[in-house]
Amino acid sequence: MRLEQKGLTVWFTGLSGAGKTTISCVVENELRSQGYKVEVLDGDVLRQCLTKGLGFSKEDRDENIRRIGYVANLLVRNDVIVLVSVISPYRQIRTEMRRDMADFVEVYVNAPLEICEQRDTKGLYKKARAGEIKNFTGIDDPYEPPLFPEVTCNTHQETIAESAGKVLRKMEELGYYLPLMYSQNGSNLQASDIF
Amino acid sequence: MRLEQKGLTVWFTGLSGAGKTTISCVVENELRSQGYKVEVLDGDVLRQCLTKGLGFSKEDRDENIRRIGYVANLLVRNDVIVLVSVISPYRQIRTEMRRDMADFVEVYVNAPLEICEQRDTKGLYKKARAGEIKNFTGIDDPYEPPLFPEVTCNTHQETIAESAGKVLRKMEELGYYLPLMYSQNGSNLQASDIF
Repeated sequence: MRLEQKGLTVWFTGLSGAGKTTISCVVENELRSQGYKVEVLDGDVLRQCLTKGLGFSKEDRDENIRRIGYVANLLVRNDVIVLVSVISPYRQIRTEMRRDMADFVEVYVNAPLEICEQRDTKGLYKKARAGEIKNFTGIDDPYEPPLFPEVTCNTHQETIAESAGKVLRKMEELGYYLPLMYSQNGSNLQASDIF
Repeated sequence: MRLEQKGLTVWFTGLSGAGKTTISCVVENELRSQGYKVEVLDGDVLRQCLTKGLGFSKEDRDENIRRIGYVANLLVRNDVIVLVSVISPYRQIRTEMRRDMADFVEVYVNAPLEICEQRDTKGLYKKARAGEIKNFTGIDDPYEPPLFPEVTCNTHQETIAESAGKVLRKMEELGYYLPLMYSQNGSNLQASDIF
């Protein structure tokens, strides 16, 4: 008998610079190394192709999220684990995603605005403060934190590994992830061997 | 041991009304009934969501195709069989799709323009002739037939079942599809039982 992998959307929401992409990459690598089928849908990357031409008004942000949700859903119903990494500042559309997806875990990647702005990994906060970018979440656009996320990662108080570990433990708890197991002689047994 | 399903893009190209959606639906049902993971990406449907806002200029058509190709690729690399049903009139972009996808079968759904226009299932030819729709393939926009498609379905000369059969036989020949088998007592054995 073969245990099938179950599809799941893990939705990382949070301010720019909070650590969504970083955490999702660590989770992706961990899952992939254990033989899981996994895809990352990263908002920044998708804006170059799937959602090109969309802006940052509420309407365009919602359309952006709906398209990402559409693709996530196609993958999840074919048993892929999908890690969505996108600011997704509006609670309502995240709720819509949760409603439309049978398998959904919301991860609130949380860090105070001041910390994200200090990090400013992409130099976007500086531009937003200078008025060169409009509708920037946290500066002149709202961010509505999740009320009941399955996981909260406080990235100003914990390491990347700790954050990723929280996500993986939640996936394990919900039955989507079976951590690496060891054979009797101590060598690694890949998930792909036991599936 | 479990034989894994192999991902594949089956790309149905042809004029509006040639029968792309019809054939892909029959193939989809056949595969699904045998336990295969399969998705149809239909150009008409996707223009309501994934490619909303794109028009019918060559540039927009190419962007339309690239987005569909992007999603197809995400699915195929997770071992899903993807049936793409889209006019895709330009040879160059279809060649680009073939180049970018390791597993690709091109199906030319062929019927003379006169026949497609007589069928006019969606009433679009009438509107195009009346000038209400511009850039309509076959009327005031070109269609470049495939030079070396893996399968050609001549839908004015064969039944829907014959066309779908051609596609399935090609998939079988290339090792992507194992037709329904029968157990010794004559009852159906589903592909899902033997995978």
